[in-house]
Amino acid sequence: MGFTTATAALRLSVGMLLFLVLAAARAESLPSWNDSESRHQIVSFVAAVTDPGSPDFVPADARIAVFDNDGTLWSERPAYFQLLFAIDRVKTLASEHPEWRQRQPFQAVLEADLRTLAESGEKGLLELVMATHAGMTTEEFSTIVEDWIGTARHPTSNRLYTEMVYQPMLELLEYLRAHGFKTYIVSGGGIEFMRPWVERVYGIPPEQVIGSSIKTRFELRDGEPVLVRLPEINFIDDKEGKPVAIHQHIGRRPIAAFGNSDGDLQMLQWATAGEGRRLGVIIRHTDADREWAYDRESLIGRLDKALDEAAERGWIVVDMKEDWGRVFAFESPE
Amino acid sequence: MGFTTATAALRLSVGMLLFLVLAAARAESLPSWNDSESRHQIVSFVAAVTDPGSPDFVPADARIAVFDNDGTLWSERPAYFQLLFAIDRVKTLASEHPEWRQRQPFQAVLEADLRTLAESGEKGLLELVMATHAGMTTEEFSTIVEDWIGTARHPTSNRLYTEMVYQPMLELLEYLRAHGFKTYIVSGGGIEFMRPWVERVYGIPPEQVIGSSIKTRFELRDGEPVLVRLPEINFIDDKEGKPVAIHQHIGRRPIAAFGNSDGDLQMLQWATAGEGRRLGVIIRHTDADREWAYDRESLIGRLDKALDEAAERGWIVVDMKEDWGRVFAFESPE
Repeated sequence: MGFTTATAALRLSVGMLLFLVLAAARAESLPSWNDSESRHQIVSFVAAVTDPGSPDFVPADARIAVFDNDGTLWSERPAYFQLLFAIDRVKTLASEHPEWRQRQPFQAVLEADLRTLAESGEKGLLELVMATHAGMTTEEFSTIVEDWIGTARHPTSNRLYTEMVYQPMLELLEYLRAHGFKTYIVSGGGIEFMRPWVERVYGIPPEQVIGSSIKTRFELRDGEPVLVRLPEINFIDDKEGKPVAIHQHIGRRPIAAFGNSDGDLQMLQWATAGEGRRLGVIIRHTDADREWAYDRESLIGRLDKALDEAAERGWIVVDMKEDWGRVFAFESPE
Repeated sequence: MGFTTATAALRLSVGMLLFLVLAAARAESLPSWNDSESRHQIVSFVAAVTDPGSPDFVPADARIAVFDNDGTLWSERPAYFQLLFAIDRVKTLASEHPEWRQRQPFQAVLEADLRTLAESGEKGLLELVMATHAGMTTEEFSTIVEDWIGTARHPTSNRLYTEMVYQPMLELLEYLRAHGFKTYIVSGGGIEFMRPWVERVYGIPPEQVIGSSIKTRFELRDGEPVLVRLPEINFIDDKEGKPVAIHQHIGRRPIAAFGNSDGDLQMLQWATAGEGRRLGVIIRHTDADREWAYDRESLIGRLDKALDEAAERGWIVVDMKEDWGRVFAFESPE
């Protein structure tokens, strides 16, 4: 090995050390978490699986943690943000599609007729998604998402959507990574809707994002290869689909799972039923002042069966109102 | 940050440094590669994309290299090793399936009637695969593969199948990782057939393995979640499927791709058409003495279109006979 390589390796290691020291210093205290039982249980799990002297020790490469996105890392009200994206896209594309003015569910979107839109049901929503998410290359779609996420505003807070992420969860992601965890998103949302921005916002690289998807087709256009997005469902990453997708993408069982709804039930079951110490966490929306309050009766993010099972299976239920000192970074700290 | 955390971080960094120094020292010379033009081109590509002062510099997180498996990392003669696994499984399971003695293609396997087996075509092979790869949980299948790969012998060399890996490619994988690359397998073979052993043999963890797959179903058995393997194709990771799967799993374009057959053509096109400096490599089977020699006319691992395109697109064609000092670790070094 040459001198240059040795120097580069040394630099890398010194850089790594500094990074670890700083990351640990920032993350150790989880500053937006109150000194609650939930916080205590999470910290004690991490201590147990990372201490080489502990009977619960897990080697770093098996420290895999999976996070739902909508309602777990960012808000999902008044509707899933990806649906709001689709609605914005319909408005943007309407001038190229005069037929939409007389065709549902597009007409309902253009006339802000939410009742008719809701009545169009799953079929209507699927049509909206296909019209706005398919027909372009993967690179074109990525640019569309980046442009939208960089400028569009949340309808009630008037914040950028990327400001609607939960500060305590950002700290938790960083805290876990500082302790050798590999953090994944496992979301019912579209994989290609998340990838353009989650690295910047959550520190999660594209290859650690799992989600729902439509099919793509490989084509050569004037000799240049492209992937074209097709109006056909490939995979729905929700409920029973989550463990299936985790196995497909990761190939080993996570030791920690974080969700907020019945859509995360099977993922929580799968992750926490493995051998050794495991962590299951449910984020419960209890704070109507700072965020929203909803659970068993909600259409979006219903938390019912998973809440019943939390007690039986020993999952932690985080109470947003009680356990979080602040919800969003844009709030003034307490 | 506490003293303990600082100490742990320091230890980790010192460990990392030692690892890097040793890995670089071992890998830098690619000892099983002759001092050929192919080797020179690979080394100069790696130097260019890892030198921060180079116009071709690529940050470490974008240094993604994808490798085909059959015929690129290990042999594929006299047949794909996964097919030999399926044949061994049919023999093992035959006592539980007396009906197989009168049913094709099982009868052909049990009577070693290769002509009839070949005549059963894709449909017959699919039936063999489904009968031997489905019907159990993912964990049960993983154990079956581990048992087989740990004991079964290659029909002509009488070596373990994991000894039939190419020593120069093992060195190349390590060399790339020592230079900050993330190495992936992208194989037409089954993802779950590879994951149990590729980490030990290639140093590639389960989450960096992409392959063909059958569907799985999530079930609770006495309250315990399992994934059951179903006799239904989920995805064929070959030809046009390779870039599709790369995009699905990784979400960014590799900067280097290694293959050996027309099944890798689209993956090579996709990886090397991206912006900036790219590396496409074809391993050409030219060594009938130490391995096998085949290309344009072969049924297994046909290399025809990709060979034509290599010249146009500037891909390196590695000549196994000329470029490799040795092929397998079990050969005595020259």
